[in-house]
Amino acid sequence: MNSLDQIQIILIETSLPANIGSAARAMKTMGLTNLRLVAPLNPIDEQAQALAAGAKDVLDNAQIFHSFEQAVADCQLVIGTSARLRHLQNTLIEPRDCGKLAVERAERGKVAIVFGRERVGLTNEELLKCHYHLNFPTNPDYGSLNLAMAVQLASYEIRMAWLELQKNPQIRPLVEAKDYPNTEALEHFFNHTERLYKQLGFIRNDAVMLKLRRLYQRAGLETNELNLLRGMLTSVEKQIEK
Amino acid sequence: MNSLDQIQIILIETSLPANIGSAARAMKTMGLTNLRLVAPLNPIDEQAQALAAGAKDVLDNAQIFHSFEQAVADCQLVIGTSARLRHLQNTLIEPRDCGKLAVERAERGKVAIVFGRERVGLTNEELLKCHYHLNFPTNPDYGSLNLAMAVQLASYEIRMAWLELQKNPQIRPLVEAKDYPNTEALEHFFNHTERLYKQLGFIRNDAVMLKLRRLYQRAGLETNELNLLRGMLTSVEKQIEK
Repeated sequence: MNSLDQIQIILIETSLPANIGSAARAMKTMGLTNLRLVAPLNPIDEQAQALAAGAKDVLDNAQIFHSFEQAVADCQLVIGTSARLRHLQNTLIEPRDCGKLAVERAERGKVAIVFGRERVGLTNEELLKCHYHLNFPTNPDYGSLNLAMAVQLASYEIRMAWLELQKNPQIRPLVEAKDYPNTEALEHFFNHTERLYKQLGFIRNDAVMLKLRRLYQRAGLETNELNLLRGMLTSVEKQIEK
Repeated sequence: MNSLDQIQIILIETSLPANIGSAARAMKTMGLTNLRLVAPLNPIDEQAQALAAGAKDVLDNAQIFHSFEQAVADCQLVIGTSARLRHLQNTLIEPRDCGKLAVERAERGKVAIVFGRERVGLTNEELLKCHYHLNFPTNPDYGSLNLAMAVQLASYEIRMAWLELQKNPQIRPLVEAKDYPNTEALEHFFNHTERLYKQLGFIRNDAVMLKLRRLYQRAGLETNELNLLRGMLTSVEKQIEK
């Protein structure tokens, strides 16, 4: 299978249908076809169809989701676009590294690149659910990249990395040694942790889970590590039940 | 001086003012401000202004030219966007190399990145006057990149190369050893050559000049080399006059 088919471009609560149409065209020029829309504020209209041009199929096949969580549930790697926020420092990546990472991990499972609302981007809660945060190296005096332009740049770097991988297939085994959990499995783990430690009286406010989420998202938990952590939770639960 | 200020984005006979507005915004997000328009088919309208958003200054300061030749006359390096045409094989470059080349040469003089008409691109005559031809690595099944998107990608790679150069200023001297003629000087040379060899009866059709143009554009003639070639033409002329 073509690993580009594993990559999902996800647009959150887009207000202008024109941007969705332009994003579809941008994706297809770079060989990406999976578009997911989370609660678009306005329906796809004629202008969006016109701007999609020869990528009408991408637009027509776009999947609609009600929430960010549902849209990324089956993805093993979630990269969200973001301004250069201080508290995200450890997880910030630029488009070039984003392209490489997405293509490498697409060999193993679904990858999501998530773009926020036109004016306000992604919420802090959404950012927290991303493993990495894509930041564009824009002009500090004017960094207002149009949504579809951002999709174009990210898609371009994905294609560049993918073309590179076609030329050098020997670098693949490095990635194949690892297996990563999808977002749904990670959420189960976070919920499990929160439930248990609230029961234990350790968690009394949101700060603890925020820190834990940041830690594990940044670490890029592997499946065997997640299984280990969940086993630890279960062992604590068994102790409580006694 | 900031070398980004030496780089000119040139749009040829653009039909949709919206594309000009979007291109202005795309440029400014990457720190480019010099926009040149060659005979735009329609005047800048409200939609173009709206799409330029915070880059209205770039749009307002755009210079209008009547011809391709005038727009590139003061540029020492001219890179034209083009499909992957066989006869251009030796001069084709991808956006990443285009960014590096533009930034390196912008240390020495003006650089033009030229984008053709929405539907038909640049004419063969215009392509011939470009030193290099920028080709985007698009999906072979759908390579229809929107004009402003192409400007965004090229501007992004220029910014990436420029940021790299800021980090590694020691690589500059490599470029500083050379001086390049501008397009006007090159045109003088080509016209001089054509005139002389027609007089000599050697040039009887367009094919000769086409080949010579291709050769010298590809070679990236330096100023001292151009002076040498012009000296040779003059020496032949003197011989004829005797």
